[in-house]
Amino acid sequence: MEPRKIGITELALRDAHQSLMATRMALEDMVDACADIDAAGFWSVECWGGATFDACIRFLNEDPWERLRTFRELMPNSRLQMLLRGQNLLGYRHYEDTVVEKFVAKSAENGMDVFRVFDALNDPRNLQHPMAAVKKHGGHAQGTICYTVSPLHTTEGYVRLAGQLLDMGADSIALKDMAALLKPQPAYDIVQAIKKTYGEDTQINVHCHATTGVTQVSLMKAIEAGADVVDTAISSMSMGPGHNPTESVIEMLEGTGYVTDVDEERLLRIRDHFAGVAPKYKEFMSAITTVDTEIFKSQIPGGMISNMESQLKAQGAGDRIKEVMEEVPRVRQDAGYPPLVTPSSQIVGTQAVFNVLMGRYKVLTGEFADLMLGFYGECIGERNAEVVEIARAQTKKEPISVRPADTLEPEWNELVAQGNAIEGSNGSEEDVLTNAMFPGVAPGFFKSRPDGPKNVGRTPEQLAAEATAASGASKAIREPIRYRVTVGDRVSTVAVEPA
Amino acid sequence: MEPRKIGITELALRDAHQSLMATRMALEDMVDACADIDAAGFWSVECWGGATFDACIRFLNEDPWERLRTFRELMPNSRLQMLLRGQNLLGYRHYEDTVVEKFVAKSAENGMDVFRVFDALNDPRNLQHPMAAVKKHGGHAQGTICYTVSPLHTTEGYVRLAGQLLDMGADSIALKDMAALLKPQPAYDIVQAIKKTYGEDTQINVHCHATTGVTQVSLMKAIEAGADVVDTAISSMSMGPGHNPTESVIEMLEGTGYVTDVDEERLLRIRDHFAGVAPKYKEFMSAITTVDTEIFKSQIPGGMISNMESQLKAQGAGDRIKEVMEEVPRVRQDAGYPPLVTPSSQIVGTQAVFNVLMGRYKVLTGEFADLMLGFYGECIGERNAEVVEIARAQTKKEPISVRPADTLEPEWNELVAQGNAIEGSNGSEEDVLTNAMFPGVAPGFFKSRPDGPKNVGRTPEQLAAEATAASGASKAIREPIRYRVTVGDRVSTVAVEPA
Repeated sequence: MEPRKIGITELALRDAHQSLMATRMALEDMVDACADIDAAGFWSVECWGGATFDACIRFLNEDPWERLRTFRELMPNSRLQMLLRGQNLLGYRHYEDTVVEKFVAKSAENGMDVFRVFDALNDPRNLQHPMAAVKKHGGHAQGTICYTVSPLHTTEGYVRLAGQLLDMGADSIALKDMAALLKPQPAYDIVQAIKKTYGEDTQINVHCHATTGVTQVSLMKAIEAGADVVDTAISSMSMGPGHNPTESVIEMLEGTGYVTDVDEERLLRIRDHFAGVAPKYKEFMSAITTVDTEIFKSQIPGGMISNMESQLKAQGAGDRIKEVMEEVPRVRQDAGYPPLVTPSSQIVGTQAVFNVLMGRYKVLTGEFADLMLGFYGECIGERNAEVVEIARAQTKKEPISVRPADTLEPEWNELVAQGNAIEGSNGSEEDVLTNAMFPGVAPGFFKSRPDGPKNVGRTPEQLAAEATAASGASKAIREPIRYRVTVGDRVSTVAVEPA
Repeated sequence: MEPRKIGITELALRDAHQSLMATRMALEDMVDACADIDAAGFWSVECWGGATFDACIRFLNEDPWERLRTFRELMPNSRLQMLLRGQNLLGYRHYEDTVVEKFVAKSAENGMDVFRVFDALNDPRNLQHPMAAVKKHGGHAQGTICYTVSPLHTTEGYVRLAGQLLDMGADSIALKDMAALLKPQPAYDIVQAIKKTYGEDTQINVHCHATTGVTQVSLMKAIEAGADVVDTAISSMSMGPGHNPTESVIEMLEGTGYVTDVDEERLLRIRDHFAGVAPKYKEFMSAITTVDTEIFKSQIPGGMISNMESQLKAQGAGDRIKEVMEEVPRVRQDAGYPPLVTPSSQIVGTQAVFNVLMGRYKVLTGEFADLMLGFYGECIGERNAEVVEIARAQTKKEPISVRPADTLEPEWNELVAQGNAIEGSNGSEEDVLTNAMFPGVAPGFFKSRPDGPKNVGRTPEQLAAEATAASGASKAIREPIRYRVTVGDRVSTVAVEPA
């Protein structure tokens, strides 16, 4: 039998550093790897979208559009891929359709090829327009299923959703497992059922995080079931809350009848590049280093837990995290079982914190009220009518059942006017979009943009000093440190060790 | 279809800390987990043998026999399991058969149930007598295949070896992958072929390290092929050069038709126990935190590389590791392709260092000469006749083709006399065996034994002080620290930062 070729999407430039180091990696720490990435033979290179746009202007004083153009120039032979939050674009609210189309058009124009489009609630109506825009502007439209687990989520349901995405003209289907909940058997079942229902030619890409330690096996089973492309991150940027290692996934296939055409010499060089860069971002590094299987019970992604913890601490209630974690499934059920992914994870998590601190649904966050009133779209389950009533009473807004973006007035012209009026704006539509998505951050960024990118990683000098300090510190613990202290002409020796 | 039950061997008490923290964990840091381990429902609990015996007397001032008796007492419902280096017992030379039998008898008497017996060269003659001794003394004799990769190693060869082990009366077969080289497809093929050849009732246990990031998939494929028991380590003692996480392996099976009957509440408690203990041993912790797939190319286990590196550094030739790593496959080929595992990994590695530093085979180590002359047994391949000739010339010894232990004179009575003569020996056969295996270490241990166990981990006070120092140190690096220094009535401000 002819071996079947499996494609690899390399995540180092986007989701890997988003997951492992809070999206802080500067473009200058990536450029030297681009030639090798471009030549390695990946199916695609994910390098933009998700939280990177926000991080660029909020923390790195980097123009995200310039970053995209740089990647395009440095990787002329690769499919560049981005993660797009459907009708939310890369921001945190719904945008009117013209804005969505402008954003997609500009992304394609600046070099984007593959648009992985998802909606946090898996509401197909929120994907319809962005997918159409991608098709119109010549991109590869990848319709996304956010994988989650609940009493209502079934293989059949995911297959139905895949069908809706294909009806929208999806060039491929992504099975996106942002919380590492996808176990081998459901991975197999879902991929197999989609292929069986819609034909073997339906391209399926599988994206898993590694957090729970089971998903590399899930990638194997997905491939056995017919998956065409799997997402991985180069080993020096892998594991923990990140992704399965590119090299390991390639090695795992040896002799199986599945092959990848990835150049292993290039992989070594990409690995070494990021092994050198990663320590600069230690300060932002995730604390999770081994696996966490409790997520299977709580279904609460790691990032969401740390978010809720800091909210509790800010209220002097750091000891109540267990109550909050028990409240999350209740809140999620009341909301109709949304997948927990940006922004639904934050909305559900914050409401759970409010419930614990102030009493269940005594106060709703504005976002949670909107979720209950349908302003984010529909979930798989019914919303709890009592909580909908509370939301209505609190906000004086009526629930909607139409597509959320249908409630929006045309806004592009106003956004152009607003954007162009900001000091430092260069008058481009790109700047208009930047400000449209991050109106609280963009003005500051436009102003400081001439200063150029700001690398928030450690400098080589800091790294070296730190290594010295650390070796000193660890020595200090094991044996007394002696200091010679000179004051005026009196010299004393002082020994210090932990009591 | 009835789900098939898969057994789990928990490695936390032996191979996990041997692989992750240089075998340094003290018994006192394990005892509190034993009740949960005993009740969790593992097929067996590996807790003794390998390097633990050596570490007990060399570093921890702990009587290894007392450790075994403690485990027996604390885990009355579990199969206790040990790793036994065949005719080498737990030492580094071949022992005469009476000594082997005495050791096995005493191990069984003190509480051991399952003896995983291996030989570094996969020479069945070195397993024959230890296996017979285990059977005679009522233990579970687990015959071991050391998995390696070479032009001569084939599935058929491993199946043949399994047959030889079964002919010796093996109660089960262990497929032991000490370097994480076992990929999913060969795992499937070997397990399936053994089952097919010797019957479905042949029990197969699969032991993989996690180093290369592929072996959890290999465990899955081995299970699909019929493996009965797989080895794992609780998540807080897993990954890196250690093993796949117990919880992840259990979760991975959900819905597959394979089940484990392990108690997940107990697992959480075991996990939390070791999560608390592990930081004490940070000093001994392996530097590998993510995966290393270069082993597939070099086939040199990580521990062996760090060994060779320190040998080179000691000779002021730390920069020649690449040459040495290229020399290893050559030396291994000349020796007939031994698996690289204790002690063959050390023997081959040290000779490679000698070859690079002094010219190829200009000087042979005594151990390498013995290996070339057959004193460790037979490998799968022919030994290079020219190098055998050099070994003969250097040592004035003739090559042997008999079982190595057949060249040994009866030695038990002499070992008894030697052992009993040592100051501090308690006159037991256990002490005789301790001294027989570690004659350079046992006398010192016997003398200091009355002082009681010595925990080499950090104390809680040291851990706390270290955490403080580390947070201070990391701050110091980011910005200058200003001190107000008052001496007498002169006040100065001093700013300190790394140069």
